[in-house]
Amino acid sequence: MDIKAVAHVLGALLIFISLTLFFPIGVALFYKEGAVMSFLITQGAGLICGLLIWKLTPGDRELRIREGFGVVTFAWILLSAFGALPFVLSMPDISYTDAFFETMSGFTTTGATILPDVEALPYALLFWRSLTHWLGGMGIILLSLAILPMLRVGGMQLFKAEVPGPSVDKLKPRVQDTAKILWGVYVLLSGLEVVLLKIGGMTLFDSFCHTFGTMATGGFSTKNAGIMHFQSAYIETVIAVFMLLAGVNFALHYRALRGKPIVYWRNAEFRTYLGLIAGVTVFLVVMLRLHIYESVPTAFLKSIFQVLSLLTTTGFHSADYELWPLPTQMMLVLIMLVGGCAGSTGGGIKVVRVHLSVKYIFIQMKKLVHPHAVIPLRLNNLSISRDAIVDILGFLLVYFLILTGSSFIMSLMGLDLITSVSTVLSSLSNIGPGIGTIGPTENFAHVPAIGKWFLSFLMLAGRLEIFTVLVIFNRHFWIR
Amino acid sequence: MDIKAVAHVLGALLIFISLTLFFPIGVALFYKEGAVMSFLITQGAGLICGLLIWKLTPGDRELRIREGFGVVTFAWILLSAFGALPFVLSMPDISYTDAFFETMSGFTTTGATILPDVEALPYALLFWRSLTHWLGGMGIILLSLAILPMLRVGGMQLFKAEVPGPSVDKLKPRVQDTAKILWGVYVLLSGLEVVLLKIGGMTLFDSFCHTFGTMATGGFSTKNAGIMHFQSAYIETVIAVFMLLAGVNFALHYRALRGKPIVYWRNAEFRTYLGLIAGVTVFLVVMLRLHIYESVPTAFLKSIFQVLSLLTTTGFHSADYELWPLPTQMMLVLIMLVGGCAGSTGGGIKVVRVHLSVKYIFIQMKKLVHPHAVIPLRLNNLSISRDAIVDILGFLLVYFLILTGSSFIMSLMGLDLITSVSTVLSSLSNIGPGIGTIGPTENFAHVPAIGKWFLSFLMLAGRLEIFTVLVIFNRHFWIR
Repeated sequence: MDIKAVAHVLGALLIFISLTLFFPIGVALFYKEGAVMSFLITQGAGLICGLLIWKLTPGDRELRIREGFGVVTFAWILLSAFGALPFVLSMPDISYTDAFFETMSGFTTTGATILPDVEALPYALLFWRSLTHWLGGMGIILLSLAILPMLRVGGMQLFKAEVPGPSVDKLKPRVQDTAKILWGVYVLLSGLEVVLLKIGGMTLFDSFCHTFGTMATGGFSTKNAGIMHFQSAYIETVIAVFMLLAGVNFALHYRALRGKPIVYWRNAEFRTYLGLIAGVTVFLVVMLRLHIYESVPTAFLKSIFQVLSLLTTTGFHSADYELWPLPTQMMLVLIMLVGGCAGSTGGGIKVVRVHLSVKYIFIQMKKLVHPHAVIPLRLNNLSISRDAIVDILGFLLVYFLILTGSSFIMSLMGLDLITSVSTVLSSLSNIGPGIGTIGPTENFAHVPAIGKWFLSFLMLAGRLEIFTVLVIFNRHFWIR
Repeated sequence: MDIKAVAHVLGALLIFISLTLFFPIGVALFYKEGAVMSFLITQGAGLICGLLIWKLTPGDRELRIREGFGVVTFAWILLSAFGALPFVLSMPDISYTDAFFETMSGFTTTGATILPDVEALPYALLFWRSLTHWLGGMGIILLSLAILPMLRVGGMQLFKAEVPGPSVDKLKPRVQDTAKILWGVYVLLSGLEVVLLKIGGMTLFDSFCHTFGTMATGGFSTKNAGIMHFQSAYIETVIAVFMLLAGVNFALHYRALRGKPIVYWRNAEFRTYLGLIAGVTVFLVVMLRLHIYESVPTAFLKSIFQVLSLLTTTGFHSADYELWPLPTQMMLVLIMLVGGCAGSTGGGIKVVRVHLSVKYIFIQMKKLVHPHAVIPLRLNNLSISRDAIVDILGFLLVYFLILTGSSFIMSLMGLDLITSVSTVLSSLSNIGPGIGTIGPTENFAHVPAIGKWFLSFLMLAGRLEIFTVLVIFNRHFWIR
């Protein structure tokens, strides 16, 4: 890896992220909060370091694939290390471990928190916390639609066709243009949600923060009780709709906005996504109507909100689902594994991988009966290469290996069985809450420090489609 | 599928299994037990039905691949349905569900029991129960080394080279000869274990029954406390050694007995198997010495016995491992997933699949850094085809899908979370005991009837490498 070339990009990124601190600084000034100093110090340090790195490293080096991995992985680590500073500087009791965990949880759009009482925080810090979600979501959209397909990570090469490049599809060529296009959609949908939440009676501040949490499928709230705080079916409905949208490939939104809404329905991943939501919701409505809620509309709203929140890996809750019957909780855990669509801000395995691998199994069974038949695996009428299938199956394998191995590691730290598995699943799939002692009404404060660092690593690995992060442990990666 | 051709083979099998009933009949006569009648009735019915089916169906039809699947799957179902009769006929209170579950558990070498008090049973019934293990183990050796490689199930085609056929390797051609050779090894090792257990102070009856449980990696005991009943380090050691042997590919044993013991060490799966045993045992010894046992030798014997018992999917216990620290229990659950070597009587995913898929992941990571490099996946210095890799990864995927989906189904029956997962894992990997309410000192009696049928299906699916059973749900399979 060409470390200097990677450092050059990271320097530029540090400058960019320092500039985004103007937003929390504005919030601090508006609310006349002392926290403004911690942001100014962080910003100054970030700008100086960023400029120094940027100036002292060469900008003319070509970035090869391994530098691509380096930039992506180290970008998220750098941003989390840097973004933790305002927490440390303005909160007297917080450890750097906790601040890093919270910021990594933000930038990876996980939404796991170590803060038991967020309502006691300065507005500026709450805003920064939610902003890390939104910026992380921006990064992910670009990463999954423009960068990972080039790096061929875990079958993401399938999305090359949806990615800018010489004369492919409708999206404009080159990464920078893709960024503009996709971020335009992201900003547009975000703006719309802010307005709709404001109409529903939220303050403008809360509207922004919850929009950041929704569009990035993050899940940080400004209220200790989360969405339950607002006790409003309207707000729950608005957030549910935007979680649904945030879990969809943003390239589809772009094409739909260009006047072709039929693209949604033509997309196999989208259809599977909707089918999953519908199926699981129906099951939950029946179970919750029988065991918990007296009215069907309430059961429906609580069900679909929770299904969308956990399938898209947002992690908001409009009810304490740990009080629901065990089969509904297990169903929720299963959809946590699935995650959102590829090219969305959602985490998890991704709907397309589940879709293709289930399809593959059926083909496999046909082949057992007809060993000489050639049965292609198709997605949206395109035949999928053998390589892509192997990459996807390999991704699933690594996912389960990390899930089981890491749960074992967490159990070594004295956590109970369910919490050990649940903290790992929640981090790796970038969800936030789970079950056990990190349920929707609890938090990660009680996890030992070493466990917080380990879970931060899992958030990073899950967010960057695992292989992007694992590759830095390969010695070939470090050879120039 | 040619139903008549399949029925012909099943008829012959029914005759064979009826003849094996002479053994429990002999035991009943020796101990002068009334249960002899139930065995005689069963035997008579079996011989008449078997002969009728055999005579009324054509024996000259060629068996194609789909008939192969049919014979294998329906053989285990037929044997379990038939083998359950002595239980029903000689035990007044047992339901057919329970009897079928117990017999399927026997023939699939699972060892899960619904009997809370086995010591109250007639000797003949206990002998039959253990004999189902031993006969099932015979079936599995032949299945995994001679039949599945031809059916290309879940990557088992890799073992074609170890299978009889025109001029391959050392084993003699044709399935019948393979059967004679491998069963010779099986009988030889079994005889040796009977002698060694008898020397250790067991009755001849108990020596036979526990040998059946060991060599088939089954796990049925004639004592309520299992191996703990004997309180003998010698007996634990003998059983541990034979569990170790039963978890190894029997083709290796054959070649070693032919004078080439080096074949063990040249085999990559065997090395991984030993490495796994060593690694997990060391971890357990350290943990158990710290938390449970005062002496290192005791900690060692208890550790290695449990590691061998659960890795080989036997399911014997020489201690109540549910009282051990959580990380050791999680480690035991992880090795339950792995299972024995392919070609052994052990269940689970199989060491070779784990070996190859982990190797594949490392190759995958190298490929990310060097996208144009061609890095072959090798096993014992032979390059593995792309097809075999995809088949193995697909197998792992189906395994995990069934594990998670079935756990959800069990939770619908009112079982707690851990028991839901544990019953499924125990059945699918053909282990026997698990954790939760089916721990080593408990049994499956409390599982609802529908759950027992479902778990019986999982035992069958796990035992026959899953695809063999799933394929009968494919409509192409039924077309002639």
